[in-house]
Amino acid sequence: MPYRSPLSELRFHLDHVAGVQRLGQTARFAEATPDTVEAVLTEAARLCDDVLAPLNRAGDLHPARLENGVVRTSPGFDAGYRAIADGGWIGLAADPRWGGAGLPLTLATAVNDMMSGACLALQLNPLMTQGQIEALQHHASPDLQALYLPRLVSGEWSGTMNLTEAQAGSDVGALRARAEPLGDGTYAITGEKIYITWADNDFTGNVVHMVLARLPDGAPGTKGISLFLVPKFLPDGQGRPGERNALRPLKLEHKLGLHGSPTAVMAYEGAKGWLVGPPHGGMAAMFTMMNNARLGVGVQGIGVAEAAFQQALDWATTRRQGRTDGSGAIVEHADVRRMLAHMKADTFAARAIALDCAVALDMAQATGDAQWAARAAFLTPIAKAFGTDVGHEVADLGIQVHGGMGFIEETGAAQFARDVRVTRIYEGTNGIQALDLVGRKLSDGGEAAHRLIDEIEKTASEARLSHPALAEPLWQAAESLREATDGLLTRPGDRAAGATAYLRAFARILGARAHLRAAMAGDGGRARLAAFYIRRLLPEHASLLTEVRDGAEGVLAVTPTDLSA
Amino acid sequence: MPYRSPLSELRFHLDHVAGVQRLGQTARFAEATPDTVEAVLTEAARLCDDVLAPLNRAGDLHPARLENGVVRTSPGFDAGYRAIADGGWIGLAADPRWGGAGLPLTLATAVNDMMSGACLALQLNPLMTQGQIEALQHHASPDLQALYLPRLVSGEWSGTMNLTEAQAGSDVGALRARAEPLGDGTYAITGEKIYITWADNDFTGNVVHMVLARLPDGAPGTKGISLFLVPKFLPDGQGRPGERNALRPLKLEHKLGLHGSPTAVMAYEGAKGWLVGPPHGGMAAMFTMMNNARLGVGVQGIGVAEAAFQQALDWATTRRQGRTDGSGAIVEHADVRRMLAHMKADTFAARAIALDCAVALDMAQATGDAQWAARAAFLTPIAKAFGTDVGHEVADLGIQVHGGMGFIEETGAAQFARDVRVTRIYEGTNGIQALDLVGRKLSDGGEAAHRLIDEIEKTASEARLSHPALAEPLWQAAESLREATDGLLTRPGDRAAGATAYLRAFARILGARAHLRAAMAGDGGRARLAAFYIRRLLPEHASLLTEVRDGAEGVLAVTPTDLSA
Repeated sequence: MPYRSPLSELRFHLDHVAGVQRLGQTARFAEATPDTVEAVLTEAARLCDDVLAPLNRAGDLHPARLENGVVRTSPGFDAGYRAIADGGWIGLAADPRWGGAGLPLTLATAVNDMMSGACLALQLNPLMTQGQIEALQHHASPDLQALYLPRLVSGEWSGTMNLTEAQAGSDVGALRARAEPLGDGTYAITGEKIYITWADNDFTGNVVHMVLARLPDGAPGTKGISLFLVPKFLPDGQGRPGERNALRPLKLEHKLGLHGSPTAVMAYEGAKGWLVGPPHGGMAAMFTMMNNARLGVGVQGIGVAEAAFQQALDWATTRRQGRTDGSGAIVEHADVRRMLAHMKADTFAARAIALDCAVALDMAQATGDAQWAARAAFLTPIAKAFGTDVGHEVADLGIQVHGGMGFIEETGAAQFARDVRVTRIYEGTNGIQALDLVGRKLSDGGEAAHRLIDEIEKTASEARLSHPALAEPLWQAAESLREATDGLLTRPGDRAAGATAYLRAFARILGARAHLRAAMAGDGGRARLAAFYIRRLLPEHASLLTEVRDGAEGVLAVTPTDLSA
Repeated sequence: MPYRSPLSELRFHLDHVAGVQRLGQTARFAEATPDTVEAVLTEAARLCDDVLAPLNRAGDLHPARLENGVVRTSPGFDAGYRAIADGGWIGLAADPRWGGAGLPLTLATAVNDMMSGACLALQLNPLMTQGQIEALQHHASPDLQALYLPRLVSGEWSGTMNLTEAQAGSDVGALRARAEPLGDGTYAITGEKIYITWADNDFTGNVVHMVLARLPDGAPGTKGISLFLVPKFLPDGQGRPGERNALRPLKLEHKLGLHGSPTAVMAYEGAKGWLVGPPHGGMAAMFTMMNNARLGVGVQGIGVAEAAFQQALDWATTRRQGRTDGSGAIVEHADVRRMLAHMKADTFAARAIALDCAVALDMAQATGDAQWAARAAFLTPIAKAFGTDVGHEVADLGIQVHGGMGFIEETGAAQFARDVRVTRIYEGTNGIQALDLVGRKLSDGGEAAHRLIDEIEKTASEARLSHPALAEPLWQAAESLREATDGLLTRPGDRAAGATAYLRAFARILGARAHLRAAMAGDGGRARLAAFYIRRLLPEHASLLTEVRDGAEGVLAVTPTDLSA
């Protein structure tokens, strides 16, 4: 069954769960009227359903490949990319000064959701560019902005991030790439970077690499790292791609999934680069790019979950088993129904969290209010980790719903799981997200966490009369979460060992709140799905919080020697 | 890092958890002395480590292929198979009358564990033959036994199971294959079967297919199904492969994993076959084969979990991140340690359950005691589903431990997850296992379940003084399990909706009992791993049992229309 963008689902989320209306009431996003939102969604859905989704299988079967130093992309990807760029989708949330539409990130997030479900491998390309646009808008010099931003926003050129080196993954501070000043304000960048997503292609006029490297006087560790813009072709006086820069893809990786997205090892051999942000200020600039990208990656998981769910549901309603006369579709079996309800309920929860995060980012931008910014910062690692975990879990359940056919590649069920798997790893593994949550994001003394828990309890209070059987467990769960949060605040040494469980418990409970809001605002179907989630999925929070309370001792007691015994 | 068979772990399991000693005390298995057990394990480990493990990657990179109607296997698989056959490993538990060693299935289970970790795709071939040997030993005529069993036991010929058809998967009763009597005691078999594992190869002299088909007077549904033996080559008067039978592989599937194992669509075009068991008695005979195979498949999951754990641990102890001076291996990070402890603790639990099931099967055979048989029957679906779920979860955690490298195929971490994924589907999906558990296996009024729960509580009682902090939660969990079991017994309509959760909760609690026994019998490392499991993994049982109690209503309330809204 072909992918169909979940338009009515997204409309419901925006209107009744995320509360997109409040954005339209700000001066910054006054143009985001209901009509505009609707027009954007329907137009994006047409692109996703008609142009992008048909490319998904070809990207898997015909991976991007490196031929004589040049990347050849999968069949149809060039036309697909052109449709994305020409539709103005890359710059949907970018500053109008550079050609962007200046619309809320919330809307761009909904569009990225649909594009991810349609063709993740291709969608990853503009997602990287969007992160780069964000970083350049905040940190680049006016000259660099004027030269690069219009071309990135239009999609004429595309962008990449170059952080990782063989010895420096989650530990970015261990990087060795060097930047030597050339005396004319530019730098010679030398080093080798790995896992470079969409490092090259055969459909944009230039590829702009953002590269972390160390200046000669850079301190060891993360404090001595600077960020450089290093284009594949050096722009000439008119801003046209000119001389080839001293950089090249050395090889493409053979990956579990996302075959349509070329992942390269990149060599910089004295390539000319420009500093972005202050010397030794690379990490801050990179985080701008990564925070944006982290939400975007969480949404990738949700998009794939949607696509995998649609396909599994279609299979389950057409595949007949268990009746001699062949009348019973497998969706009638309780265990299959359970899997499908789980898939739909968790996709809903993850999507609600991501859109909540996007609204907070938009409100922070529109109002300058630090509370919105803190909320967005707190929700970002949750949106990333839970969105991608759900993406993988839902895709995996989709395989199971297909039975034996799930293991056969031609159904595409396995491709969803293979493609989405990396989203739990890149842009900071989900373990790193959890450490960010219990570390940096609790460093405000728990203020942002408590504010969210207050909101959850407020929703539970509001629903107490209309949905008592759902409101009470949510209230109880929120209280447990509050206690666990306070426990982590008083026992910082226990944070790392409980981080992953804490993040997931928080997500589970935020998801329950979103379901309860949906039950209050929506029809009986919303209420039944909310009841399924709260009765059968929410209870997981209890064992997760047990893990959080267990602390570091129980984990670290198992020594490396015990493990290898 | 190359795979190393977990010899000391298996010795500990056999001696201190499964209690293999009691087998040696029976007349039937008197030959299974400690010396024999040790010799078998060490010899099997040598085969696995030196011969089979080096083939695993080649099987993935160079899939079996169909060329002009003939299957060409992966490089080295012929020699690997020959080593398995020549070592007498296929007939380890087979009757000495047919050339088998007549040793306990428990020992064969330990060997299958090691072989699965070394090279799952190849190990699957003798596993299928072992199931066929079991079925022929129980159900075939003396003539068929004398002709086929010695050749299957020696590995000269190999065996397959042919159940599934395109419209008949979990619903075997919907099959359409026909068997026409030829008047000479043989039958002409016609039909198309799918998902036929190791349907053909280029290293055994014959391939013996066990095919489910319907006789002309067969009733619709499962009651009218008969089982036939259909060889690729018709044996001549001396039992040598003679004339080609009218059957052929039509195509090989392109699968997510297990590329080294050819999975075919098979066409039977009036192929000559022999009845095994009585007319219309095919399901009973097939279940003999499948029950044996279900335990074997559970063990496949465990073997892969072991291999994935070993590789992840090696990576985590050599990969350095997070210290500027590069001194800290990632195993020092709490979240990585947590993942590795989880992998090891769950592999232990699943292995203990599988070996417990194998011992029960052996004791049933040795003593004829129906209680042992009932115990084995109850544990089989748990061993299958939990073993394979753990196999996949552990392999998936292994990917995560590898970070970005986990997504790159050359590390092999992804291959473990791809290969093992199908074990959750074949030989009855894990959902079917759960339905078997709450259906057929509770049809004794809960006797087998309660007997197991009694044993769990007995262990908890015994540990109350020595390990109070571990014994108490186990006791409580067992009591909850007892209540949930009684609930299912009184509300049969709720069984299907709670089946998967019930099976997993039972496994979680059986696993805790095994860990507690290990803590009592083993060193401090065993006790620390047991504490990790009981404190951090066992609590999952509570939310699972909440699901069980929730019943059918909450699941079925979400209608297909709600799902597609």
